[in-house]
Amino acid sequence: MKDVRIIVTGGTIDKVHDMQGEGLGFAPSGASHIPLLLEQARCFFPKVQEILLKDSLDFDEADRAAILFAVRNAPETAIVVTHGTGTIGRTARELAGQVTGKTVVLTGAMRPFSFGASDGPFNLGGAVIAAQHLPEGVWGVMNGRVFAAEALDKNTGTGRFDT
Amino acid sequence: MKDVRIIVTGGTIDKVHDMQGEGLGFAPSGASHIPLLLEQARCFFPKVQEILLKDSLDFDEADRAAILFAVRNAPETAIVVTHGTGTIGRTARELAGQVTGKTVVLTGAMRPFSFGASDGPFNLGGAVIAAQHLPEGVWGVMNGRVFAAEALDKNTGTGRFDT
Amino acid sequence: MKDVRIIVTGGTIDKVHDMQGEGLGFAPSGASHIPLLLEQARCFFPKVQEILLKDSLDFDEADRAAILFAVRNAPETAIVVTHGTGTIGRTARELAGQVTGKTVVLTGAMRPFSFGASDGPFNLGGAVIAAQHLPEGVWGVMNGRVFAAEALDKNTGTGRFDT
Amino acid sequence: MKDVRIIVTGGTIDKVHDMQGEGLGFAPSGASHIPLLLEQARCFFPKVQEILLKDSLDFDEADRAAILFAVRNAPETAIVVTHGTGTIGRTARELAGQVTGKTVVLTGAMRPFSFGASDGPFNLGGAVIAAQHLPEGVWGVMNGRVFAAEALDKNTGTGRFDT
Repeated sequence: MKDVRIIVTGGTIDKVHDMQGEGLGFAPSGASHIPLLLEQARCFFPKVQEILLKDSLDFDEADRAAILFAVRNAPETAIVVTHGTGTIGRTARELAGQVTGKTVVLTGAMRPFSFGASDGPFNLGGAVIAAQHLPEGVWGVMNGRVFAAEALDKNTGTGRFDT
Repeated sequence: MKDVRIIVTGGTIDKVHDMQGEGLGFAPSGASHIPLLLEQARCFFPKVQEILLKDSLDFDEADRAAILFAVRNAPETAIVVTHGTGTIGRTARELAGQVTGKTVVLTGAMRPFSFGASDGPFNLGGAVIAAQHLPEGVWGVMNGRVFAAEALDKNTGTGRFDT
Repeated sequence: MKDVRIIVTGGTIDKVHDMQGEGLGFAPSGASHIPLLLEQARCFFPKVQEILLKDSLDFDEADRAAILFAVRNAPETAIVVTHGTGTIGRTARELAGQVTGKTVVLTGAMRPFSFGASDGPFNLGGAVIAAQHLPEGVWGVMNGRVFAAEALDKNTGTGRFDT
Repeated sequence: MKDVRIIVTGGTIDKVHDMQGEGLGFAPSGASHIPLLLEQARCFFPKVQEILLKDSLDFDEADRAAILFAVRNAPETAIVVTHGTGTIGRTARELAGQVTGKTVVLTGAMRPFSFGASDGPFNLGGAVIAAQHLPEGVWGVMNGRVFAAEALDKNTGTGRFDT
């Protein structure tokens, strides 16, 4: 079976309640919740690499370059990228032209994993399967569907990714 | 995109705390938790059909016949079956010889969805993707991996499905 | 045993994840989470009266007047007020001079009930007991302690109410 | 303010999902969930002493003697005992005649804390307040009410403690 790497960049799936500022924030660098999510999922084989913990609306070119670098340098050919839903489509389309020989699947969530009742585990479970079984290329997995990079965009009206 | 049917048969994923008997039980017939799981996952397109709410260790031949009947009669070609992990492999192997023209994916959980911190959403998220994108045949999806029917067996030592 | 009224004014205990604005907000008016909290607590006897769903930092004089009015007009002598922690002490001190013949207990939470792992149920459980068993007056209950109105202030450094 | 000791004896509040036996069990000795419950409640001052992790239906005379011994030997005068609901009344009545100079409050839950949506935090929050503010004697706190030892009995029909 294929080795899988999960590259963590932040996004809502990794947000936490910021008790001081009474809003949403991120845990300190290095404290992504993705390892805990995988532990609850009893999914022990992926290698998790946290490169960013940011809202994807705040990504700059250096951030997207860091994602591309991490994807290209991964020894695995099955790659999942956790990402904010705000600009997940843009990152997917940038990666699409620049990665070969790998299946890259972007995913995320509309509700933080740390709040419970999150769509994150369902989405990540789909992404891990997709990374191992879809053809080479760049894909998004959200809410039970696979999207090609060019079709990966949040419907901000419904708060969903649909067709 | 493909229509997906989820056939619910019970298993740990659907168990609840039985306050009277102080153990694990099932909600009354018709009250599967899979629709709530899908709602939290923001996954609105699958058709959910509850045919049983039983521990798969208690399945008899009539129960397996009911599963086969439901799979064969489904108008969709992408089918997910939620199932107890105790005999999931046996059911998969029985179905394997008797279904054609469909992708059937069995899945379940080691911890009930209703207890929180369950592997169920991750597993079901993977199964819904697999049902749409794997070749025809009967498969299992657990803990981030796809298993052929013949290789789908719980490692009772680790409490996992591994390779 | 005494009848208990819970007057709901909002605060963090009642906040929810705002998926559109990607921050914290409140459910629509009339949709406080306190009834669900009480149902999980299997505490069925209090009467719940939602008068506001606001962050207490946004309270104006009309809001505090509405709280005073509700407390004074309650037929019960045991009253709990759920309140934001930001100005809970100020409201307590305003009420303290103006209510007689009743035990009024203010409480709230540092983490929303709707996010799980909240301090809200523990705090409300203490407040409901305190309202029935403390002497007449205005009190705060937070994190396992009872505070007199004059001593009820969040330590913004620790994010706790301590002595 | 008073020091509080929480004496842990097990009961449903401390039960966990037993994945192997597919039922309810307890964590290994020394791994009570009460410290985590208190951490979520942001209640840092009580001293927690685990003496048993058992279903109270399985208590024998040695177990009740151990509880009495722990209560008598506690340096604090405010004591909470977490206890299974099955025989909580019996233990309360046994303690009632044999402890003086202390306020002892028994509490528990109908749903395990580890399953989420538990009544445990609400009950324990009430018990911690009651232990500090009720008169000397032995009491039970469940579901928002204080019960004298002689009136502390589960209504097995409703699954509640009521009056």
